[in-house]
Amino acid sequence: MEDCIFCKIVKGDIPSYTIYENDNIKVFMDIGPVAKGHSLIIPKKHYTNLMDMEPELLREIDEVIKELYPKFKEKLAAEGLTRMQNNELGQEVKHYHMHLIPRYKNDKLEPAVNEEAKENVAKVFELLK
Amino acid sequence: MEDCIFCKIVKGDIPSYTIYENDNIKVFMDIGPVAKGHSLIIPKKHYTNLMDMEPELLREIDEVIKELYPKFKEKLAAEGLTRMQNNELGQEVKHYHMHLIPRYKNDKLEPAVNEEAKENVAKVFELLK
Repeated sequence: MEDCIFCKIVKGDIPSYTIYENDNIKVFMDIGPVAKGHSLIIPKKHYTNLMDMEPELLREIDEVIKELYPKFKEKLAAEGLTRMQNNELGQEVKHYHMHLIPRYKNDKLEPAVNEEAKENVAKVFELLK
Repeated sequence: MEDCIFCKIVKGDIPSYTIYENDNIKVFMDIGPVAKGHSLIIPKKHYTNLMDMEPELLREIDEVIKELYPKFKEKLAAEGLTRMQNNELGQEVKHYHMHLIPRYKNDKLEPAVNEEAKENVAKVFELLK
């Protein structure tokens, strides 16, 4: 898509720190990382979010992540990997991407419990069940 | 697995606020939610993390998430959905699970940029490329 920053990265019009690439997928480093090695895995073709992503491509992305994870451990001494993928609100670039966030001891990346939500779990359950 | 809390939830030995269930998958509310409606989607069979999950089951889970997302919007007025899945460090229960976190305006769930990691992106790239 013309105005999509990730499509421009795929085309090479915007430079990126690309750590993996194949015909369908590109992985490059997030320049606003929340942890050392924080990268983004994207389909080269433009999809907006999970709702329009092709199942086959989701599967291919997961397989690439399985290949990359040992590298994060070996090269960066990461001890865990968080996959995070935002849809609509919270998704800055509207081109499907999954955050790959290497985890380290005491990295403080656990989101805090929302006390109001915790008190209301039973009530919210009534709405969702 | 005998000592796995999620296996016990699957068997019904531990109660849960289950919002979706089929032969292979269960979705129940997180009782320490980081947002209203925060739920966990798990395979009923025990897998440890992404590295041993079956591709076909990963896809089935994604399809269930696609079904649930409109419900979070309709019933809870969520405006986004974050999928988050921790492997090894950061993963409290060692039974594969993906967090489904409905997103709301001003929910402050964006992890903060790590300034040290940001300064060292080019250096870390040299290790990963």
